[in-house]
Amino acid sequence: MSLPPLHAAADAIDQLRAIGREFHGRSWSLGTSSNYSVVVGREPLELLVTASGKDKSALGRDDFVRVDAAGRVADGSDRRSSAETLLHCTLAEMIPAVGAVLHTHSVWGTILSAADLSRGSLRIAGYEMLKGLDGIGTHDTVEEVPIFANTQDMVELSNRIKRRLGGLDWRSAERPPCHGFLLSGHGLYTWGRDLAAARRHIEIHEFLFECVARARSLPAADVLAPHAATRQQWQMQQQQQ
Amino acid sequence: MSLPPLHAAADAIDQLRAIGREFHGRSWSLGTSSNYSVVVGREPLELLVTASGKDKSALGRDDFVRVDAAGRVADGSDRRSSAETLLHCTLAEMIPAVGAVLHTHSVWGTILSAADLSRGSLRIAGYEMLKGLDGIGTHDTVEEVPIFANTQDMVELSNRIKRRLGGLDWRSAERPPCHGFLLSGHGLYTWGRDLAAARRHIEIHEFLFECVARARSLPAADVLAPHAATRQQWQMQQQQQ
Amino acid sequence: MSLPPLHAAADAIDQLRAIGREFHGRSWSLGTSSNYSVVVGREPLELLVTASGKDKSALGRDDFVRVDAAGRVADGSDRRSSAETLLHCTLAEMIPAVGAVLHTHSVWGTILSAADLSRGSLRIAGYEMLKGLDGIGTHDTVEEVPIFANTQDMVELSNRIKRRLGGLDWRSAERPPCHGFLLSGHGLYTWGRDLAAARRHIEIHEFLFECVARARSLPAADVLAPHAATRQQWQMQQQQQ
Amino acid sequence: MSLPPLHAAADAIDQLRAIGREFHGRSWSLGTSSNYSVVVGREPLELLVTASGKDKSALGRDDFVRVDAAGRVADGSDRRSSAETLLHCTLAEMIPAVGAVLHTHSVWGTILSAADLSRGSLRIAGYEMLKGLDGIGTHDTVEEVPIFANTQDMVELSNRIKRRLGGLDWRSAERPPCHGFLLSGHGLYTWGRDLAAARRHIEIHEFLFECVARARSLPAADVLAPHAATRQQWQMQQQQQ
Repeated sequence: MSLPPLHAAADAIDQLRAIGREFHGRSWSLGTSSNYSVVVGREPLELLVTASGKDKSALGRDDFVRVDAAGRVADGSDRRSSAETLLHCTLAEMIPAVGAVLHTHSVWGTILSAADLSRGSLRIAGYEMLKGLDGIGTHDTVEEVPIFANTQDMVELSNRIKRRLGGLDWRSAERPPCHGFLLSGHGLYTWGRDLAAARRHIEIHEFLFECVARARSLPAADVLAPHAATRQQWQMQQQQQ
Repeated sequence: MSLPPLHAAADAIDQLRAIGREFHGRSWSLGTSSNYSVVVGREPLELLVTASGKDKSALGRDDFVRVDAAGRVADGSDRRSSAETLLHCTLAEMIPAVGAVLHTHSVWGTILSAADLSRGSLRIAGYEMLKGLDGIGTHDTVEEVPIFANTQDMVELSNRIKRRLGGLDWRSAERPPCHGFLLSGHGLYTWGRDLAAARRHIEIHEFLFECVARARSLPAADVLAPHAATRQQWQMQQQQQ
Repeated sequence: MSLPPLHAAADAIDQLRAIGREFHGRSWSLGTSSNYSVVVGREPLELLVTASGKDKSALGRDDFVRVDAAGRVADGSDRRSSAETLLHCTLAEMIPAVGAVLHTHSVWGTILSAADLSRGSLRIAGYEMLKGLDGIGTHDTVEEVPIFANTQDMVELSNRIKRRLGGLDWRSAERPPCHGFLLSGHGLYTWGRDLAAARRHIEIHEFLFECVARARSLPAADVLAPHAATRQQWQMQQQQQ
Repeated sequence: MSLPPLHAAADAIDQLRAIGREFHGRSWSLGTSSNYSVVVGREPLELLVTASGKDKSALGRDDFVRVDAAGRVADGSDRRSSAETLLHCTLAEMIPAVGAVLHTHSVWGTILSAADLSRGSLRIAGYEMLKGLDGIGTHDTVEEVPIFANTQDMVELSNRIKRRLGGLDWRSAERPPCHGFLLSGHGLYTWGRDLAAARRHIEIHEFLFECVARARSLPAADVLAPHAATRQQWQMQQQQQ
């Protein structure tokens, strides 16, 4: 992993602004929801995080705050970083290879995380698109996306995340234990070695969430007439006879 | 709340035109539906409202009308303001902090408002995105979005709105009684201290409407096989064995 | 109705090209489907129609053909007009106020027209958005959108349309008998006094098709737990207890 | 079919970059998924294929690799072509008229290909949009889109494709045996005599996949009340009485 030096932060900011416009356009970051960060230093850990409550379709150059490992503002400004800054810091500290963290609120992530909270994770299995996640080389696998009950207490949530995920092997050169997690009724956190990788992980997770949700609603094929692929085609065939 | 002075109206008009293009693109303001307003004076109350029957994807600088508290044209022009102008005035008068009112017609708002009319409100509970509404600081809450039966009689509807909502405490510095309402089979009214806040409230409501509607259609997880997250994954696993 | 003079055709062509880009972007005119026309003369009747088989996202200035009332090429070119040209001519001849005809292929129009073919029409009732159709002033009404069984025989189909719709009163200054029709498994024809009105009618019909289809899939509210608006919220409430 | 000469490759590259932006925008090529190719020579066969693992929203001029009939890099570069290059080569070799091959990952294609794998094909019948596929002149037909079980072994998959499709008549001037195929839980391969035709085939297949999937979820009309087109309209009518 190559960490961006401090003078690379301007590039990162422009990339984050473009990501904000894109994700807002896709309805993944509506209404000042979502927060994004990049790791700008490792010794000591420093992140550049979106400021609190900003419209992601129109992030300005000044809508970012530098924070330390505890989530405290470290750039001398009086801007407030996002309320969920601590989760970004927790992830960056727990996973050495993290260069960027992205958090989005999509409809599919929101409703699946609520529906499957009692299972503890969202199970995604057998899809080719899983190969877009770092270290996965086949569709013939299962990804369990951990789901945490939502809360407004970031310290408590951060501790819960560390208890559940902190003991796992995040240094393996192979596949990491997971590539993101869900907060119930809330949304997705994912990350990557750099912003491009984190953006790719967002796209992959969101695509798979939509697949899982839509597949659940698809009637089983054998409910339909045996020689018709859809009920409607069956009706059309009847009418044509 | 800082009210825009009269000479700020040009800015508001350009913002409203951009909102029109955006909402039309999102299919929230198709076919000359929707109407938008900003409060341009408080003593006496004056609003700038979209003219009647305009294509929201191509609002011109002259497609706005200044009206008084009774919804009468106040700028000496012969333009007609939107047929629903009176509702904008009613809201601006009832809620002191209102700087802008936005009304949209989305598919989800349309069908949920019809489906839940008999309950009197659409209940939205437990979603993190609720925090995007003014004065809400936790997901652990319930927002009841009032639903009014649709009518073409704006005076009667305005009176119904005042009877149901007028007696509530709109001056509290805390959370307001509600952040918008639905007309059944019709659409959403929401507002904010300025246009940015009203646009955010549109995005939040529309996102939540989609969550509520899609969550209703999602099969309960326990209908599925115990170890498979979806019926389809279960079938795929069967085939792989 | 003011008919565009012949020298106004260049404007109409540019508007049609913009409509093509917009409808392709909305997935209403994918894969060279759809055809559009404007009436450029009434005595004798002449239309400007999209040429056959063009990509609607990239219509060129020369991708239009002038045809006479029988659908024959009337501009001396060797371009072929759309295979469905005759339907445009039939509509322009049958309805005196028609200045433009638009035909789109959307997913919702396709599946509803197949599902409801046996009823003979798609019934749309009670939606505010109906007011976007010419001559409708209230939501409290029913619009029956005729559905014709699809065919490749345009002469036969044109005759069927004339038999069913030709005898109706299309000269009334009030509400016309209908504002469009569906071909089963195929798509929507609608029209207007000019292109802006026809485009508005496309948007209104497509919006309403989506409402009707999605409302059919929405579970009845009383299937859910009495105090929860959605099954998922009900589950979330259970978990919080 | 007119094959593009080698010096036309620059044009093809710019068209492929535009297709990448478009398909990424439509969520058909998210997260470095998908791969695209054009045939740049026939004797011997050479293809220009997207390089491995590229973000399709931002393909650069150098993100393409020239390969021979066996999928080996033929331009002396050290770029890796897509992992699925061999399938592009197999198709280009098997079907003489192929000038371009496009492979996309859409949600509908993903879930339908998984749902119908056990039938061996996805059946699409009766839709007008089928006429957008080469050689189909009527809606009154059936298209069987072959479904192959997904694998990471491209040689084995290529052989399976050749066994099932290789013996069919791909030289007929009439309708080809099929216009694309699905890999289960993975996505669509389609092709055309040139890039425009292949792009059109993508749009047609994707449109039809969405129709088939949504039609399956649409409740049968006769489940609803006899005089109401939707359950919701029926409820609205009840309330109005």
